Amino acid sequence: MGRWEPNARGRLEQAALELYVERGYEQTTVAEIAGRAGLTERTFFRHFADKREVLFAGAGTLRDDLVSAAAQAPPGAPPIDVVATALAAVAAPFQGRLESVRRRQSVIEANAELKERELIKLASLSAALAETLRERGVAEPAASLAAEAGIGVFKVAFGRWVGEPGGGEFARIVREAVDELKAVAAGS
Amino acid sequence: MGRWEPNARGRLEQAALELYVERGYEQTTVAEIAGRAGLTERTFFRHFADKREVLFAGAGTLRDDLVSAAAQAPPGAPPIDVVATALAAVAAPFQGRLESVRRRQSVIEANAELKERELIKLASLSAALAETLRERGVAEPAASLAAEAGIGVFKVAFGRWVGEPGGGEFARIVREAVDELKAVAAGS
Repeated sequence: MGRWEPNARGRLEQAALELYVERGYEQTTVAEIAGRAGLTERTFFRHFADKREVLFAGAGTLRDDLVSAAAQAPPGAPPIDVVATALAAVAAPFQGRLESVRRRQSVIEANAELKERELIKLASLSAALAETLRERGVAEPAASLAAEAGIGVFKVAFGRWVGEPGGGEFARIVREAVDELKAVAAGS
Repeated sequence: MGRWEPNARGRLEQAALELYVERGYEQTTVAEIAGRAGLTERTFFRHFADKREVLFAGAGTLRDDLVSAAAQAPPGAPPIDVVATALAAVAAPFQGRLESVRRRQSVIEANAELKERELIKLASLSAALAETLRERGVAEPAASLAAEAGIGVFKVAFGRWVGEPGGGEFARIVREAVDELKAVAAGS
């Protein structure tokens, strides 16, 4: 990852998303992505295993950030508040990337295989969150239920954020959705 | 589906599950399934499109039953109670099929493609449930949040039922898990 290719990774991501939207994900080749970014295929493969990974490269970081935020919540906090804090923490870095997030989402929605991959990513986030709650001393099934409900909230909040004309503040939408879930669970 | 092949569908399902467990899903052919069931391949294809469909043939019925139970809940019932009633209703028919459900689950857990398919099934249940809640007049995001949380509860309750030595009563485990979710959301 030499210094003669400034922000190669970011340029490859940008080029890939543009091409996936313009030509379709299936029709785009790694050679085209590299070409659009003004880089070589070899450089592409130094950053990504394949063209799908461009869309999911952030999944590991997202999971690590979620686990880390949940682990650092105040000791003794109720599980639902640990989850709310962790989700709002990982929502914040999405802010300012709305256009690129929207573009990625439209590519994923258009492809069954990518939608499956996205569901697996969410299931893996839920499993990691439940594991962190258990490490905090939360018993089962509360840990898994809080994690499943939390990832459901994240999914719904994400859809609202991406779908709103102005976008709004994702972390705030996440917190509002957790409050809505609390109201729903209370029977209102 | 002639009368000269009594319970062909059930025999094919049983044979397929046995073979998937014994030899692995990937290694099993339709010819072997038909042979084990004492039927022809042609009969297999009258009942199932392919060997994967044997594992997911019930998904459409499950979704229809879930939607129908949610639609028939008392008018004005809180969304979370509509969801609880609908989930308990679809849990009931699983009772008495624990061994076959466990066998199916072990096959799915062992295969990444089947796990993806299972996640898609759950996502489709959530979308159908949210749609039914909206038709009942529940606003967004409450409808989607109740549906997502509900399917999360179902997933957790299913895991507990399949994992418990004696199995227990699935519908009761579902109702208990909804109550646990209510407690979690209330901050306990």
